[in-house]
Amino acid sequence: IPDRVPLCLDLLPALSGEDTTKGFFQELVNILFSYVCKSFRRSSKVLDFHHPHQLRVGLEGFSLELPDQPENLEQLLVDCKDTLKYGVKTGHPRFFNQLSSGLDVIGLAGEWLTSTANTNMFTYEVSPVFILMEEVLLRKMQEIVGWSEVEGDGVFCPGGTMSNLYSVLLARYHFFPEVKTKGMTALPRLILFTSAHSHYSVKKSAAVLGIGSENVVVVKCNDRGKMIPAELESSIVTAKDQGCVPFYVNATAGTTVYGAFDPLNAIADICESHGLWLHVDAAWGGGLLMSKLHRVKLQGIERAWSVTWNPHKMMGAPLQCSAILVKKRGLLQDCNQLCAEYLFQTDKHYDTSYDTGDKTIQCGRHVDVFKLWLMWKAKGSEGFESQVNKCLENAEHLFDKLKERPDFELVFKSKPEHSNVCFWYIPPSLRNMPPGPERNRRLHEVAPKIKAKMMEQGMAMIGYQPLGDKVNFFRCVFSNPATQTEDVDYLLEEIARLGHDICIRIETDL
Amino acid sequence: IPDRVPLCLDLLPALSGEDTTKGFFQELVNILFSYVCKSFRRSSKVLDFHHPHQLRVGLEGFSLELPDQPENLEQLLVDCKDTLKYGVKTGHPRFFNQLSSGLDVIGLAGEWLTSTANTNMFTYEVSPVFILMEEVLLRKMQEIVGWSEVEGDGVFCPGGTMSNLYSVLLARYHFFPEVKTKGMTALPRLILFTSAHSHYSVKKSAAVLGIGSENVVVVKCNDRGKMIPAELESSIVTAKDQGCVPFYVNATAGTTVYGAFDPLNAIADICESHGLWLHVDAAWGGGLLMSKLHRVKLQGIERAWSVTWNPHKMMGAPLQCSAILVKKRGLLQDCNQLCAEYLFQTDKHYDTSYDTGDKTIQCGRHVDVFKLWLMWKAKGSEGFESQVNKCLENAEHLFDKLKERPDFELVFKSKPEHSNVCFWYIPPSLRNMPPGPERNRRLHEVAPKIKAKMMEQGMAMIGYQPLGDKVNFFRCVFSNPATQTEDVDYLLEEIARLGHDICIRIETDL
Repeated sequence: IPDRVPLCLDLLPALSGEDTTKGFFQELVNILFSYVCKSFRRSSKVLDFHHPHQLRVGLEGFSLELPDQPENLEQLLVDCKDTLKYGVKTGHPRFFNQLSSGLDVIGLAGEWLTSTANTNMFTYEVSPVFILMEEVLLRKMQEIVGWSEVEGDGVFCPGGTMSNLYSVLLARYHFFPEVKTKGMTALPRLILFTSAHSHYSVKKSAAVLGIGSENVVVVKCNDRGKMIPAELESSIVTAKDQGCVPFYVNATAGTTVYGAFDPLNAIADICESHGLWLHVDAAWGGGLLMSKLHRVKLQGIERAWSVTWNPHKMMGAPLQCSAILVKKRGLLQDCNQLCAEYLFQTDKHYDTSYDTGDKTIQCGRHVDVFKLWLMWKAKGSEGFESQVNKCLENAEHLFDKLKERPDFELVFKSKPEHSNVCFWYIPPSLRNMPPGPERNRRLHEVAPKIKAKMMEQGMAMIGYQPLGDKVNFFRCVFSNPATQTEDVDYLLEEIARLGHDICIRIETDL
Repeated sequence: IPDRVPLCLDLLPALSGEDTTKGFFQELVNILFSYVCKSFRRSSKVLDFHHPHQLRVGLEGFSLELPDQPENLEQLLVDCKDTLKYGVKTGHPRFFNQLSSGLDVIGLAGEWLTSTANTNMFTYEVSPVFILMEEVLLRKMQEIVGWSEVEGDGVFCPGGTMSNLYSVLLARYHFFPEVKTKGMTALPRLILFTSAHSHYSVKKSAAVLGIGSENVVVVKCNDRGKMIPAELESSIVTAKDQGCVPFYVNATAGTTVYGAFDPLNAIADICESHGLWLHVDAAWGGGLLMSKLHRVKLQGIERAWSVTWNPHKMMGAPLQCSAILVKKRGLLQDCNQLCAEYLFQTDKHYDTSYDTGDKTIQCGRHVDVFKLWLMWKAKGSEGFESQVNKCLENAEHLFDKLKERPDFELVFKSKPEHSNVCFWYIPPSLRNMPPGPERNRRLHEVAPKIKAKMMEQGMAMIGYQPLGDKVNFFRCVFSNPATQTEDVDYLLEEIARLGHDICIRIETDL
């Protein structure tokens, strides 16, 4: 250990850098452990909000600027503390803002190991264990989806949007393999179908892949946010009548806002009769497959040609962990391979079918599988099942509470199918106001105001949005096993308290 | 602490789970620290090779299968040890296999913190600090590239191939914004240009984006692997004569195999005169911008419209860390935004221009910036400069050694520009053989055989490939600051030893 303040040059690989490195890791882990403990403590804030311009100027000596000269290790540890201090505790039991939440200690351990191993998923020679773990995980997930032993392929990718993009890419290649070399100009006008409540990644994929976002037909949903099969059928017929070529349908298992499940079997029937690729975006709903009680909501998913499933959402894996599962073996490879000789040499001494990198649209690929593999070992399939069930119980608890209260209104009356619960807080002045544009105008402003105040106070976090003809409403989602019914109750009281104060203030101002 | 063997359910967020969690982290960190120390120790093996079928059956109790019931924490720690044991030490000073190597302790600390923070880069509200760090890093990198204060935009993405894909996507949108909604069928036949030595990601992008890989024109290189500007010029003219529309040129700063730098100014002149988008793929060469001595090799990069730069390569950041830099502000946003209302609400209480997620083709995006930010703090720009210089000194050392030895032959005689050194080991029986197909046939088999043996013995790792008319040759690359000249010398001796043994054996067999 040097006799001045240590710098990073004193760490390994420096000669006799082991002690300094050990001490540095120890201090770092203390900081991280203390953050983990705080994340789970209800007395901690979820966030300590500052505006961008406030953080930019360097709050309390926390400077973001990049120096020419090194800082010492002590200062770096202070920087680490500050980074966490001004961030958001997404593992806090009262963080309801995103479909991904929670802080799984085993998953975290998996990430720490992954980054220590610091390797790439392209070839078996540099990632022997992780490549095999990916195979084992994909196989398991395909089994759970319900595919037979001779079906099934897939890859983990950087997020659900990329997984959905793969599905469109593969469907296009399946029907028109010449697109790989000739491009879209060699093809007829292709049409995709997805529901009005589906994720925007289907449109994004169409834009990126050169299909064009206008060629995505948005199919109507019922009040509950489920695609109406008859609407799909008639949209397909209309597209054909216009001389276009329908080729792909995205059905959603767990929509982003309502948590709705499209009727997969009815949609699969239509896809079959028209010969279309059926993709199921189960990024959010896939977790329910782990539950004997809830997997019935995804009945028919085994008929999909491809499935997106994000274990980083309902299964609580750290970000990112998303799989695209593909029924037809070999298609990923055919669609994407370019056989780069510097990476995928065919004269290697091992079975090069394990060099899976040429299946992907990436070259280097982050190891996203180990954390999930370790979590599966730690919990077993049954552990995931309990987690999922618990999240859905929380949703039901919230739903039951909301039904009872005069100061809240549900966006739809039926019991939640997933863990999403959508509702308005109704300020006193609107409670007796008749429905109509004026009430809507005022109600639309309530959720953003409450959320702003909530973020400033930092005790909870929840999302809101408008959707279709519904003005801004809150969407509560549960994916954090740390959340208890007391947190759900707290959230409602907090919204009511903030909402009441804000609305009193606004009305006094008027 | 429970009085039975602890399970993951005893960890946080369990009530009184703090002690069990602390103990678990402590044991995990001991395992990881011991791996880090071993990675830097020359007496450790780089890898302990096993074939896929060997690992699959569960070596020494290391089972990859996913259970229904939980395993206990002790077993999980054993699984962690085994995962590392059968992996590859990419931080070992004798791992020369990939452009990304090394194990930066500060970068690793950054990754551990990143995974503990477990958040997403889409909005400021969930990633306030990381969003600002991305802005600061991108600004700094743009400055270093040489763009003015009013120019420059960008985003970190999952690897260089995705960064290159962005460049093609943006160029297409810049010239033909209608592609976003109408797709490629509304466009003329577009043509891209890239050199014969460039990375395969340009072709992959063309395939994915619906442009078609055949519409990528491969421009000839000189012996040193640099694009020949006159060839580019004539290819553009030919494409125009054929009624196609050239729109994009990729110039490489640091090719994958030779480490060659395309003549950027000459290429920029041609792009200017034809009005084409100039992208510079500096995924590998970008690191040289940090060095006053070597940045001259990228002269002209400031004229690029977009630049790919992977700090996870030459700057030693952990995987993944890749930036796409874009000269024209606002283009990323215009090209990719879809304004999803559940995420990018416009009625938030903070400056929503910091909700950068709609610039990307992803939705959720991993935090890849913190490790780089922390490394920059720890090293300063000057620290990166010394690292880069040192890697290039190692390359020069290897080059000098190879020139002297009769048992090796350089693929090209000129001094390396980057840290790539390409060479053949020439077995005794080939040393006096005249050049020709028979010598080539036999030489082609040498590198794979040596590499196979090297992996089995596990003391070093290096890549090989054929390229153009050159049969299989070794490519050594240096990006690990832990590598010393003694390791370079060791590598040569090791190749000579293995090569000699193998060739003797083959010749005895014949």
